[in-house]
Amino acid sequence: MIGPTLLALTIILAVAKFGGSLAIRFGQPAVLGELVAGLVIGNLTLLGWHGLDFIEGDATLGALAQLGVILLLFEVGLESTPRQMLSVGLPALAVACLGVAAPFALGYGVSAWLQPGATWYAHLFIGATLTATSVGITARVLRDMGQADSPEARIILGAAVVDDVLGLVILAAVSGIIAAADHGVPAKVGPVLWIIAKAVGFLIGSMVLGVWLAPRLFKTAARLRGGGVLLGIALAFCFILAWAADAVGLAPIVGAFAAGLILEAAHYKPFTERGEYALEQLIHPVTAFLAPVFFVLMGFSVDLGTFADPHALLLAGALTLAAVVGKQVAGLGAFGPGVRRLPVGIGMIPRGEVGLIFANIGLGLHIAGVPILDTSAFTAIVIVVMLTTMVTPPVLSWSFRRSRPALPEDRAEAIKESVEPE
Amino acid sequence: MIGPTLLALTIILAVAKFGGSLAIRFGQPAVLGELVAGLVIGNLTLLGWHGLDFIEGDATLGALAQLGVILLLFEVGLESTPRQMLSVGLPALAVACLGVAAPFALGYGVSAWLQPGATWYAHLFIGATLTATSVGITARVLRDMGQADSPEARIILGAAVVDDVLGLVILAAVSGIIAAADHGVPAKVGPVLWIIAKAVGFLIGSMVLGVWLAPRLFKTAARLRGGGVLLGIALAFCFILAWAADAVGLAPIVGAFAAGLILEAAHYKPFTERGEYALEQLIHPVTAFLAPVFFVLMGFSVDLGTFADPHALLLAGALTLAAVVGKQVAGLGAFGPGVRRLPVGIGMIPRGEVGLIFANIGLGLHIAGVPILDTSAFTAIVIVVMLTTMVTPPVLSWSFRRSRPALPEDRAEAIKESVEPE
Repeated sequence: MIGPTLLALTIILAVAKFGGSLAIRFGQPAVLGELVAGLVIGNLTLLGWHGLDFIEGDATLGALAQLGVILLLFEVGLESTPRQMLSVGLPALAVACLGVAAPFALGYGVSAWLQPGATWYAHLFIGATLTATSVGITARVLRDMGQADSPEARIILGAAVVDDVLGLVILAAVSGIIAAADHGVPAKVGPVLWIIAKAVGFLIGSMVLGVWLAPRLFKTAARLRGGGVLLGIALAFCFILAWAADAVGLAPIVGAFAAGLILEAAHYKPFTERGEYALEQLIHPVTAFLAPVFFVLMGFSVDLGTFADPHALLLAGALTLAAVVGKQVAGLGAFGPGVRRLPVGIGMIPRGEVGLIFANIGLGLHIAGVPILDTSAFTAIVIVVMLTTMVTPPVLSWSFRRSRPALPEDRAEAIKESVEPE
Repeated sequence: MIGPTLLALTIILAVAKFGGSLAIRFGQPAVLGELVAGLVIGNLTLLGWHGLDFIEGDATLGALAQLGVILLLFEVGLESTPRQMLSVGLPALAVACLGVAAPFALGYGVSAWLQPGATWYAHLFIGATLTATSVGITARVLRDMGQADSPEARIILGAAVVDDVLGLVILAAVSGIIAAADHGVPAKVGPVLWIIAKAVGFLIGSMVLGVWLAPRLFKTAARLRGGGVLLGIALAFCFILAWAADAVGLAPIVGAFAAGLILEAAHYKPFTERGEYALEQLIHPVTAFLAPVFFVLMGFSVDLGTFADPHALLLAGALTLAAVVGKQVAGLGAFGPGVRRLPVGIGMIPRGEVGLIFANIGLGLHIAGVPILDTSAFTAIVIVVMLTTMVTPPVLSWSFRRSRPALPEDRAEAIKESVEPE
C-alpha cells in the first residue's frame, strides 16, 4: 500500500521546507530547520497525539531516506576531484589530521568521564562521531559569506575533504571493531588494520579503477541516445560503488562519496556539449527530494522525553564543548602567509549530516544484543550536531568580519567557481 | 539492507538507458526499449540463470516504481491546464469519446470470443485497457516530427487529454465493479454510478479546490526561503492529491494527474522570477530516475514462457487489431476545415504507460482469490502495448509525410511552445 507513504512524504516535505525556511530566516543552514521540524513532529506523542506514528514504521520511507543520504554524499563528492584531494597542501592535511585526532581523544575522554558504566566501544564510537566535518555545510556557509577565496577557506575546504575520508575510514574501523566484539571475537590490532586496509584499499582501488573507467564509461554512454542518459549512468555509477562499498563491509555512503569524487565535468563533456544540463543540476532535484526525508526522519527519531534526563543534557553539553575545542586544536595546524587560525578552527566545527549518519549507524550497532548507543547518548549526539551546526554560521561570519571586509559579490562568485570546478 | 536494492537499481538504470537508446536508434520511443530490456533480463531464467531473481521480490524497488509512475503522470498532467481541457473543441471531444467506446467494445468482443471460459469481468477489464491513449508518447512523437502545429495534432493532443481522464474514470468504475464482485456483491448500476460520480466528483472537486488553492499555496510558499522550495511544495501537492485519490478508492495516479493539470506556470512565477528553474526542469530528473524503474520492472514481470501458448499469441494479435481499428473509428470523429482523419486515428493508437498501468492494476485484482487477468491475458496486454507503441511512430510519420512536408525546425519549435505552454 503506497497510500500512507504518500501522506508521510507530503508531511515530511511540507515541514522540511517550512523548517528549512525558518532556519534560514534565523541565519542558520536549512538542514538545521529540517532536523528541528522532524524533532517537533516526532515528539507530538508527548502531547498525547499519535496520529503520525505510522511514519516511524514505514519501510519505504526508510529506504528513501537511505537513498537520499547516499545521493547527498554523491553530490558532496562531486564538488571535489581526486586531483584536488592530492593537491591539498600540507596545512590542509595537518588541519585534517589534528581535526580528527583531537575531537576523537576529547570525545572518548568525555564519554569515559560521564558514562563510566558504558563499554569502551561506546566511548570509541562517540569519539569517532566527533571527528566528522560536514563539507556541505562548511562549503555552503563560506559561499553564502562570499569568503570562498580566502586562504582560510581553501584550507578548510581541503581539510574538510580529507577529514571526510579519514572520518569514513574511522567509522569503518570502529564499526568493524564493534562488529568483531559482537561476534565474541576480542578486538585485535590485526583485524583493525585489515579493516583500515580494506577501507583505504577500497577508496584507492575505486579511485584508480574509477578514474581509469569513468572517462571510458561516459564516452561509451555518450553514444546512447534519448533523454536522461547522463543522469541514469551517473546514478548507476554511484549505486554500483555504494553497493561495492557495502559488499566489502563499508558504509554505502563511502562508495557514493568515492563515486562523486571520481566523476569530473570533463567525463560528461560530450553530454553538456550537446545541450544537456550539467550533472549537478540533474542530481540536485533528486537530492532535494530525498535528502530532507533523511534529515526529517533523523529528527523524528530524537526522543525529547530523554531531555528530562539531566545526564543526557550534561553529556550533550560536554560533548559539544569537546567538539568545538577539538576543532580549534585543528586550527593550529593551519600555516602559511597571513593565514589566521581562528576562522579555520571555527570553519571545521559543523558536524552536519556526516555526524548524523554516524549516530544513525551507531543506533544499528549491537554487542550481544545491547545497542552501542543508548537513547540518551544518541540524543546527546544529535544535540551536538544541532549545536555545532547552529553555532558555526554566526561565529564563522564574525571571525571573518573581524579583520577583513567581505568581497564584492561578483568577485566572490568568480573565485567560488575556481575553488569548486563545475 | 539497502545493498541488493542498490545493485538492482544499477542494473535497472543501465539496461533502461541501453534499451532506450537502442529503441530510439530504431525510430521507436525510449519507453519501448525499457520494456524490452526489462523483458530480457526478467526472462534470463529461461536460460537457466537465476542471478537476478532478487529483483522481483524487492519491496523498495516496487515502491520506487510506484512513485515513478505517480510522478510521470504528474509530469504529463503538467503539460496541460484545466482551461485547455475545457477549451478543447467538439472534434477533440468526439474523437475522445469514440476513442474510448470503440476500443472498449472491440476489446470486450475479442476477449469474449477468444476467452469463452473467462468471466465477463475479465472481458470488461481487457476492454477498459484498450481505451487508454498515452499522452506522453503521442506528444513526444508529434514533437519529434515537428508536426505539433497541425490541426490534426491539436485534435490528437486535446482528445488524448480527455481520453486519459475518461480512461481513468473507466478504470475506477471497472475496478470498483470487480472489487464489489470480490466481496460477493452483485454488480448493480447504483454502485457503478456511485464510483463514476466519485471519480468525476474527485476530479471536478480537486480541480475546483485545487485551482482555488494552488495560487494561494504557492504564493505563501514563495515566502519560504532556501533551496528546493518549489520542488518540495509541488511534490507535496502531487503526493497529497495522489493520497486523496487513493483514500476515496481511486488510483493514486488519478490524483497525481489532477495535481499536474492544476499547476500552471503562473502559480510558481515568483520562484522562476527569482531565478529558480521551472517546475518541469526540476521534476524531470526525478522522473528520469524513477519512471524507468517502473517500465523495466513491468517488462521484467512478462513471462516469455507463456509465448509457448499459442492462445496468448492469438489473443495478443486479435487485441492489437482491435486496439488499432478502435482508434481508427475514433479518427472519424475528427472534423474541421482541412482536417485529415487518418493521422488523427493513427496518433491515438499508442497505449503506452497508461495501458501498462491498467494491466498492472489488473494483475492485483481478484475475485474470490482468482486473479482477473491470468498470465497469458496479462502477457497479451503487454504485447498489445508494445505493438501499439512500436507501430505508431513510423506509421504516424508516414501518414503526415503523405500529404504535407515537415515544417522547418524553428517554426515547429515556436508552435510546439504555443501548444504546450511552459
